Amino acid sequence: MSFEIIDRDLAGRIGKLKTKSGNIETPAFFPVVNPRENIIACHEISEKFKIKNIITNAYLIKRQSEKQRLELKDVHELLNFKDIIMTDSGAYQILMYGEIKLEAEEVVELQEKLNSDIAVILDVPTPRNATRKIAERTVEMTIRNAEISIKKIKDHKIIWVGPVQGGRYLKLIEYCARRIGEMPFQIHGIGGPTQYMEKYEFEELVDIIVTAKKNLPLQRPVHLFGAGHPIILPLLVALGCDTFDSASYALYAKDDRYMTPHGTIKLSRLEYLPCNCDICRKYDASELKEMEKTERLRLLAEHNLWIIIEEIKRIKQAIKEGTLWELLEVKGKTHPQMYKAVKRLEKYREYLEEFDPITKGEIRGIFYTTSEGLIRPEVTRHIKKLRRNVRFKGKEILLLLPEQNVKPHHKSMFLSRLLEKLKLKMDRRIEKLHFCIYTVPFGLIPIELDEIYPLSQYENAKEVDACSEKVILEAVEALTEKNNYKRAIIVCDQKLMSTQTLRELRKILKKRGISVEIFKYKGEMDVEKLIKEQTLYYM
Amino acid sequence: MSFEIIDRDLAGRIGKLKTKSGNIETPAFFPVVNPRENIIACHEISEKFKIKNIITNAYLIKRQSEKQRLELKDVHELLNFKDIIMTDSGAYQILMYGEIKLEAEEVVELQEKLNSDIAVILDVPTPRNATRKIAERTVEMTIRNAEISIKKIKDHKIIWVGPVQGGRYLKLIEYCARRIGEMPFQIHGIGGPTQYMEKYEFEELVDIIVTAKKNLPLQRPVHLFGAGHPIILPLLVALGCDTFDSASYALYAKDDRYMTPHGTIKLSRLEYLPCNCDICRKYDASELKEMEKTERLRLLAEHNLWIIIEEIKRIKQAIKEGTLWELLEVKGKTHPQMYKAVKRLEKYREYLEEFDPITKGEIRGIFYTTSEGLIRPEVTRHIKKLRRNVRFKGKEILLLLPEQNVKPHHKSMFLSRLLEKLKLKMDRRIEKLHFCIYTVPFGLIPIELDEIYPLSQYENAKEVDACSEKVILEAVEALTEKNNYKRAIIVCDQKLMSTQTLRELRKILKKRGISVEIFKYKGEMDVEKLIKEQTLYYM
Repeated sequence: MSFEIIDRDLAGRIGKLKTKSGNIETPAFFPVVNPRENIIACHEISEKFKIKNIITNAYLIKRQSEKQRLELKDVHELLNFKDIIMTDSGAYQILMYGEIKLEAEEVVELQEKLNSDIAVILDVPTPRNATRKIAERTVEMTIRNAEISIKKIKDHKIIWVGPVQGGRYLKLIEYCARRIGEMPFQIHGIGGPTQYMEKYEFEELVDIIVTAKKNLPLQRPVHLFGAGHPIILPLLVALGCDTFDSASYALYAKDDRYMTPHGTIKLSRLEYLPCNCDICRKYDASELKEMEKTERLRLLAEHNLWIIIEEIKRIKQAIKEGTLWELLEVKGKTHPQMYKAVKRLEKYREYLEEFDPITKGEIRGIFYTTSEGLIRPEVTRHIKKLRRNVRFKGKEILLLLPEQNVKPHHKSMFLSRLLEKLKLKMDRRIEKLHFCIYTVPFGLIPIELDEIYPLSQYENAKEVDACSEKVILEAVEALTEKNNYKRAIIVCDQKLMSTQTLRELRKILKKRGISVEIFKYKGEMDVEKLIKEQTLYYM
Repeated sequence: MSFEIIDRDLAGRIGKLKTKSGNIETPAFFPVVNPRENIIACHEISEKFKIKNIITNAYLIKRQSEKQRLELKDVHELLNFKDIIMTDSGAYQILMYGEIKLEAEEVVELQEKLNSDIAVILDVPTPRNATRKIAERTVEMTIRNAEISIKKIKDHKIIWVGPVQGGRYLKLIEYCARRIGEMPFQIHGIGGPTQYMEKYEFEELVDIIVTAKKNLPLQRPVHLFGAGHPIILPLLVALGCDTFDSASYALYAKDDRYMTPHGTIKLSRLEYLPCNCDICRKYDASELKEMEKTERLRLLAEHNLWIIIEEIKRIKQAIKEGTLWELLEVKGKTHPQMYKAVKRLEKYREYLEEFDPITKGEIRGIFYTTSEGLIRPEVTRHIKKLRRNVRFKGKEILLLLPEQNVKPHHKSMFLSRLLEKLKLKMDRRIEKLHFCIYTVPFGLIPIELDEIYPLSQYENAKEVDACSEKVILEAVEALTEKNNYKRAIIVCDQKLMSTQTLRELRKILKKRGISVEIFKYKGEMDVEKLIKEQTLYYM
């Protein structure tokens, strides 16, 4: 097996995973296929939907073969699917139905007999509401099973997946990920997300994934079990998950639910079909409602699968363009819990910044609207730079100026005029002045840096907005940490800085021992007046 | 002609417009068709895309017929399109190319000869950067032309459109809309939006549309000229526009631009085709890039048209479900200027509230994430209700309580325990207490009202967020306007109310002459302590 990373955005990536039945481009979605009879036939999944990778349940195949007293055979033959087949162990069935008895060794043997392309060892899923004690036990059993399985494996052409468990106990996940990560698995799985997704506990899911990812070997792809909804897939990819499986397309269809990129709609509420797939162009909503259940089930499942395919393509396109963050913000609008999950990333700013590529190909602008945008890696990186930068030696007066409508900022009329007049009056003393633009989402832009990407390549919805302004405070904290300003002059455009922020800004500067002068204005700024009042040239 | 409104959401509506060649369900998009040769043949627009209404340019047809020395004939025959054809007058060509000379009477006659289904009189478009004087002249000329045209009209089976002009001068738009609205037109048009859309001046566009709509007869449909981008269509519908036309599908294709619901992507940046239309399933991005320009042009135009169709269906479905506001919030994420346009609606809260239906069919929950959600009509309506409501007589102590995780709020454990204990101690004096829950987006919910839709049917992303909290202040202002509280007790969960908001809340209450006590806490609230400290039962 080899996994090659082709492109990146946030902690997400496009990769190529080689298997013995062909290559998969990740992020990839594996539809869950019922080995007995699937709503959409396997050959259709391959031919019509062009999906070359599916997942099925090894345990169910075994049970069925036993019932029918048949020899186990190659799963490709069994499912009439010549492309990539992943098999799951049946661990989830143990979690859900309890009574099943399986041994780790047996599960390895079974999947080798099935000749799976990707196979999952028998882990022990941690139930969502497990006590810490029970969670610990599932982790220990998972690790023990992994050790047994690794020893048992004979067929190394199969890609073996080592799942991480631990439920909502992050310390346990950390421990489990480290231990499993030390073993020679080629893919890692993260167990149990379905349980959290069903309850809309997306924030917990973020914690779980990031904790697992941080403690697993980076170069190995990560599979997330049971994730197949278009509203959450972009977030999961952004966190660093590479492959997904789900029966959602069929399960939702059974429940008469129609997927859209913004959420699902119950058939009873559906009056129009806002989609261009085969089904939605051939039928209208009332026809779907009136048709026989079995027929409708198949059609809804097909539509749902098309929507998932579209979402995966949207995610990949976003990674290529470097707009995955923007896609997360859109998805944050589909449900308050999704919004909270995106906001949760604030805790993981460093993690995202670490993996996010600094520039890529063609330069593109950044759009900023509301405060979750402050989490994006470009902002984290900029604040870090302000903190580290010691290039600003010799600057004694920090001059905080409002942004104008021109970029790069130093080319604005206002700034040119200010500079020109000050040069006349101050001569070389002007070098002691440090011109910085306050703005969202970058907080502060020292004009020496303002032509560096992306400090001129962004657009914001300018307005007083206390939620966004906190980044100005953060940036001032960072900048004043190493630089020794004596004075600061805040030129406060009251449309761009709230009283509250101004007050806090003053507090931060005073704390650093910097004397503060404030020049407030509304509407047009009067450069002459600014210069006179602040008596900059007397210094 | 008749126009029947079938459903509503915000100021948007689904309607049925009868024409002599068939009915149109609005909101409807009319693809602009080049009378000589269109990128997508007219019969394909009807058969493949199932669009039964197109628009073409009467002036271009005239010029062409003159060149070829042909008699003018029925436009349906000319275009080989038996369904609904709208013709535009050529006014836009006058704006763009100036030299054309046309008279209002001639334009009426021309379109009667063409036997259009919907025809536009010759208005005089106001250029985007027109001075007030020039804008005034265009308005006067438009009104004069309208008067001339109305007199000239013989064919009353044609639906005649009376356009409103005025550029960015809202007073002029108001005047023009009133004057044109007095004349017996059956549809009104709003002129010039393309100019603003090209410059991303979406806020101006909001102002223009609302001003025109407020001054036009409500029962007449409104056509917006030149609007055909999926990111802005939901907003235009929400403001009350019913029909649209645009050549965007073809123009973007010529420019190698690929439409998506979130914006357009240049072909050169396109690596995946995140869409399920015929084209995007048949080809991949690299094939599109490599093919011959004329072939690609046609395919991109088809894809773009599919995307517009999908968006119109998405809008209609949202109106049916009552989720048009949610769709606006999603679109606000696609560009800072779109976000600002959505925020601009704050100015028009009353306008939106007036038209938005109070409930519709099945009750559905409201999702709240960021501050633009405060603009939604349900919030405006609730604040108005608080201001008007005098049911709270006899209440002397206003008790402001944080929301819990239960709805309706009065069923929360915390509130039940509080009530139970207070009843024991206060007996009937408890009736002087007014229990209100502070929350976003509704600001305050008096528990007497908390089972009324939508005060229990909402979900928010709970967190301290100064941008959202202003609605709490607004609600307290409203509630205390008519009710005579003597004391107020603010039970401040520091995770749900910022210091800043608490401070301002106190200010508002004091201004009303209400004495304020504050009970702050973090984490779990201690009911015993609250009762003791606030000595509620001594009153």
